[in-house]
Amino acid sequence: MIIVKLGGSVITDKKVYKKLRKGVLRRIIYELSGENLILVHGAGSFGHILSKDKNLNSGLNDYNAIDFSTVARDVQELNTIIVSMLIERKIPAISMPIHSFHMFGENFPYLKFYEYLIRGFVPVTYGDVVLERRKGMAICSGDQIIFNLAKYLKPERVIFVTDVDGIYDKNPKIHKDAVLMKVLHAKENVSFDKDVKDVTGGMELKFKIMGMLALSGIDVIVVNGLVKGRVKLALENRDVIGTRVVV
Amino acid sequence: MIIVKLGGSVITDKKVYKKLRKGVLRRIIYELSGENLILVHGAGSFGHILSKDKNLNSGLNDYNAIDFSTVARDVQELNTIIVSMLIERKIPAISMPIHSFHMFGENFPYLKFYEYLIRGFVPVTYGDVVLERRKGMAICSGDQIIFNLAKYLKPERVIFVTDVDGIYDKNPKIHKDAVLMKVLHAKENVSFDKDVKDVTGGMELKFKIMGMLALSGIDVIVVNGLVKGRVKLALENRDVIGTRVVV
Repeated sequence: MIIVKLGGSVITDKKVYKKLRKGVLRRIIYELSGENLILVHGAGSFGHILSKDKNLNSGLNDYNAIDFSTVARDVQELNTIIVSMLIERKIPAISMPIHSFHMFGENFPYLKFYEYLIRGFVPVTYGDVVLERRKGMAICSGDQIIFNLAKYLKPERVIFVTDVDGIYDKNPKIHKDAVLMKVLHAKENVSFDKDVKDVTGGMELKFKIMGMLALSGIDVIVVNGLVKGRVKLALENRDVIGTRVVV
Repeated sequence: MIIVKLGGSVITDKKVYKKLRKGVLRRIIYELSGENLILVHGAGSFGHILSKDKNLNSGLNDYNAIDFSTVARDVQELNTIIVSMLIERKIPAISMPIHSFHMFGENFPYLKFYEYLIRGFVPVTYGDVVLERRKGMAICSGDQIIFNLAKYLKPERVIFVTDVDGIYDKNPKIHKDAVLMKVLHAKENVSFDKDVKDVTGGMELKFKIMGMLALSGIDVIVVNGLVKGRVKLALENRDVIGTRVVV
């Protein structure tokens, strides 16, 4: 089984509210095969902009249930588009919105994914707003979902699809001399730009999750979804430009 | 707490694939209040036409996972429209697609609805395709969901919104002399037209569920959603044209 994570930055324009990169998304969907696959996508500008704007990370209060609902609806729209593109390709995709069955911090109901997987479906889930006991609500990133799924369902590979070639020693969008790290050890002390604020914990949490996946024996690779063919090569476990996270 | 069931026949044109009665739907949404409410909607032509066409009631086989996926996606689209209309009205609606957390025939996870209710949300769920252990899949109607929810969450009233004034002694769409029954006893032997084939069991199962709800002490009323104001009157527990199912 393989888990593919479509980063919000590659399938949406993260700067513009609910702006899809439709062409990119469709091409990546056409690089996937529908066998033994779980697809996890980020919320991108369908989730992050409003979540940050309404400060949803601070929790649920008497006035912001409507904001929670709006974000959940927005990412549900993005999810429906992705599921539709898979169906168009005759891949039996099924939407698994975690807000409907997961209470943040409690046991992750991975069996629900398993039941679909063994029947030949491709579960499609995504970073979402969820209820949480202490603060009332929380934001659960696609990466956190992957961590939970991988813990129990033991995929052989997790492919992170992003908008750059992999993980660099510096932010490649700012520093021209940034160097792509083809292999990165989980224990390595990589410094990520702190200036990039993100409601889901940013690159540091992402890398921590990648490291934990690698530690548990899973192949972890980060590839650029903006370049045609990279996702397909990663799926087929062939040589591809990207970053492998290893122990 | 009140459960409102929006029948598929009132919010969609049941004869035309994925045809919404948008004006009717929007008006009904505007008659709702967002307090202590669970909204359950039928699939209408977003679900029934394809389910029947592809004979999904016969179960999952090697070829029809894609049909299951397509129906689930179609009703998810209808659900997104309804959730959006509620959000437009500042009602914090949250989508609860049962295919993502319910295995047909097993315990219904009503607590997930409860968690949203107590935090001021309006859970919106719907008749959907679901997995099932024996045949692989099943169709779970909105009425069956209501039965499950009511059993545990004990609403004071369940309002069934349909496209006729209530329950008649004969099918009012065929027989001009059909008489509306203002009060109907659960034990009454009502004969429903068998010629109306329905993937979810039709009027007979629906009436059985209404009777069981009434038996457990819940007010059950059937009203016409095509007539302005009826849903609102029923919600406010005022005199309204319709059928009350009692014990």
